[in-house]
Amino acid sequence: MTASALIDQVPGPVSKAASDKLNTVFDARAVHFVVDYDKSEGTYIVDVDGNKYLDVYSQIASIPVGYNNAALAAAAKSPAMISALINRPAIGNYPSAQWHDVLQNGLLRAAPRGLDKIFTAQSGSEANELAYKAAFMLYRRKQRAAGAWTPEEVSSCLDNAAPGSPDLAILSFARSFHGRGFGSLSTTRSKAVHKLDIPAFDWPQAPFPQLQYPLEKHAARNAAEEARCLARVEELLQTWRCPVAAVIVEPVQSEGGDNHASPAFFQGLRALTARRGVCLIADEVQTGFGATGRFWGHEHWRLPAPPDMVTFSKKAQTAGYFFGNPLLVPDQAYRQFNTWIGDPARVLLCKAVIEEILDNNLVEQCARVGDVLYAELEKLAVKYPAEIRDLRGKGQGTFIAFDVEDPVGFVAAMKKRGVNIGTCGVSTVRLRPMLIFDETHVPVLINTMEAVLSAL
Amino acid sequence: MTASALIDQVPGPVSKAASDKLNTVFDARAVHFVVDYDKSEGTYIVDVDGNKYLDVYSQIASIPVGYNNAALAAAAKSPAMISALINRPAIGNYPSAQWHDVLQNGLLRAAPRGLDKIFTAQSGSEANELAYKAAFMLYRRKQRAAGAWTPEEVSSCLDNAAPGSPDLAILSFARSFHGRGFGSLSTTRSKAVHKLDIPAFDWPQAPFPQLQYPLEKHAARNAAEEARCLARVEELLQTWRCPVAAVIVEPVQSEGGDNHASPAFFQGLRALTARRGVCLIADEVQTGFGATGRFWGHEHWRLPAPPDMVTFSKKAQTAGYFFGNPLLVPDQAYRQFNTWIGDPARVLLCKAVIEEILDNNLVEQCARVGDVLYAELEKLAVKYPAEIRDLRGKGQGTFIAFDVEDPVGFVAAMKKRGVNIGTCGVSTVRLRPMLIFDETHVPVLINTMEAVLSAL
Repeated sequence: MTASALIDQVPGPVSKAASDKLNTVFDARAVHFVVDYDKSEGTYIVDVDGNKYLDVYSQIASIPVGYNNAALAAAAKSPAMISALINRPAIGNYPSAQWHDVLQNGLLRAAPRGLDKIFTAQSGSEANELAYKAAFMLYRRKQRAAGAWTPEEVSSCLDNAAPGSPDLAILSFARSFHGRGFGSLSTTRSKAVHKLDIPAFDWPQAPFPQLQYPLEKHAARNAAEEARCLARVEELLQTWRCPVAAVIVEPVQSEGGDNHASPAFFQGLRALTARRGVCLIADEVQTGFGATGRFWGHEHWRLPAPPDMVTFSKKAQTAGYFFGNPLLVPDQAYRQFNTWIGDPARVLLCKAVIEEILDNNLVEQCARVGDVLYAELEKLAVKYPAEIRDLRGKGQGTFIAFDVEDPVGFVAAMKKRGVNIGTCGVSTVRLRPMLIFDETHVPVLINTMEAVLSAL
Repeated sequence: MTASALIDQVPGPVSKAASDKLNTVFDARAVHFVVDYDKSEGTYIVDVDGNKYLDVYSQIASIPVGYNNAALAAAAKSPAMISALINRPAIGNYPSAQWHDVLQNGLLRAAPRGLDKIFTAQSGSEANELAYKAAFMLYRRKQRAAGAWTPEEVSSCLDNAAPGSPDLAILSFARSFHGRGFGSLSTTRSKAVHKLDIPAFDWPQAPFPQLQYPLEKHAARNAAEEARCLARVEELLQTWRCPVAAVIVEPVQSEGGDNHASPAFFQGLRALTARRGVCLIADEVQTGFGATGRFWGHEHWRLPAPPDMVTFSKKAQTAGYFFGNPLLVPDQAYRQFNTWIGDPARVLLCKAVIEEILDNNLVEQCARVGDVLYAELEKLAVKYPAEIRDLRGKGQGTFIAFDVEDPVGFVAAMKKRGVNIGTCGVSTVRLRPMLIFDETHVPVLINTMEAVLSAL
């Protein structure tokens, strides 16, 4: 079986008309199709032309537990949600009586090991930038020891000048994506379309391992590649023109092409950042919330000590960063602050997402189904070795990807056969099913792929 | 009458205990008091100790139409809202069938004159940074004319280096506040607590007029001061070490101390930015949505041509920027883009806010009540000339402020008498009542102020 009958045109005429109308007031050039969310359900998305797609792209990896999920609908209708929507607080000044419990019984249930504090935000970009600010303030706090702010620091920062506005850096990796704000974009290195024409900080980038597949066959070469990249990180930390306050890394480089590295690489990164007193930030915006068959992607690293901060967004339906070190709370109030500090409505919804994930063992399901899916994809890759290359993500839940010759054409053909699927990097197709994707969906995806591949 | 009996302690013991508990997982050092939002209603906020306050601070100027507003509650319970909450789209790729109409019948009803397009966002910081990015892309587009991106631009931007990552600037004014992201913070010049230890772009700041009050008495001196500031803007645009792509200005500098300038100043700013091909961005995060007795603060400027972009957040309960020039839409899709592009749940709520404002003529009410309030404050200022200084905001709705000797002490005393009120700048008390603040609330505020002032 494949997902559905061949679709004549994606986007269809109704989608196209709706998109053109939208484009008069809102840039709609990136629209894939216009969606009928009322008809979408579970892991299937329905467009306004009535076409139904198995959705393994999931709103750029951000739908956690399916469209029109009943548990989320119940949370959305709750009196607490109504209040959070209509009485939006400046959380830092006037939190609700319930705010502690919403965090404690929600986000903190999902807190990575060793990280027991949280700062809430509204997007992955914002979460990363807040983590950078925390790292910069920590760096300067250590330099200042117990000393007070100097008058020179206080006045110079208003001029954007040193010493108040210091020249400090965040190190990121080539091909990484960490967001589109001016700080987060300065650490993003994925594609020109993300960065061109936007001023950026002069911050360092290290090479990220470029592994060869299959891994078993290239173990020695891949280990050497990872050692080379780690050595370059260390060299940059030692020699960059200004101090580096933090290193940020994705457990799997997602937008940049689903680039993986081994636990040994990340263990090395943790060891060298710890040795040099540099914060390590795990950007789990795309890998977090179960997608790799663990709640957090960095659990695969088997670290002796956790990352200093872990940022999240997407499937969480809210955003922010977890941390453990109390020194990451700035020396004074109002330094890490903004009017809203996240959105309590989205944090409430996140609590329901976490309950749904834990109550239904969806992380374990993702690991299990991922193994089944990977095995089926391996068979396809054997059958179509020229078409499916560098299959990767084994043991990483459904966080699986492979390269194809023409990703745009492949994705278009898949859509016509009723599977909504996405790309990343230059030549990569990435699978980002929701956590409710189960064994029954595997043949729908595989058979559709085979139909597309055999027609190439 | 004053608001209520003298409150023994703010925060009270229940608030204090809740805040201490919260502080174990979430930085709670800036908490004023913990709120019982279920008991709060209209323009009154109730804390968990049962104390009731007339709220003229409104969650840092961000509650538009009162706590537990019935029209907003209806919107929050609507099927459209439930769907927007639980089926959160990547709006740029998969907008809902309703998205055009939600914008057209919501935010675009409130669009400033001359600006008929919108980009949605989640915070004032983000809105400003998106506007900066639009300005930078427009600047380079004009330089590039119809030329394509060069290979050198494409590769250099991944290194954060010119020409792909160009050295371009945004000019802002001394004492301005435009947010806390790395780009927006580089234009914020209000206080060290906002900026210290965070790397910043080397961008120019111009002096903002420091007017003397009463305005009638200092007309010539103030006009000269405004001319001096405009001349300095022009000089910076001509001589800054790199091109300036945009100037951003608040209609009233809010966090920086409620600093006003005359329509002539803003007309001059529009004229000189237009002459030099520099974008003018009006940051209406705090002044927008009716607070100055006009829907947009920049309506007071009586400009012949509108600002190029107008950013908003706070009372809108969502965020974004309006624009008119189609060239501000980048040359390619995905350049101004992110996963969520705002939150449709908040945009739906904003539609209800706009309906509530327009249906109840709340902008006109704000203008009318503001005049009454200002007249009463003038009387108080005459009676207590040493205590209330530089009263300002005449004809600007309820967007009124004055200086006091000890703003922290004043605000604490007001709270004990049942009025929640805020400060800004160094010595300023700012009034930020909701749009439902009416003539019956004026004596509550005035009498409480008189009780506090007479006890000084």
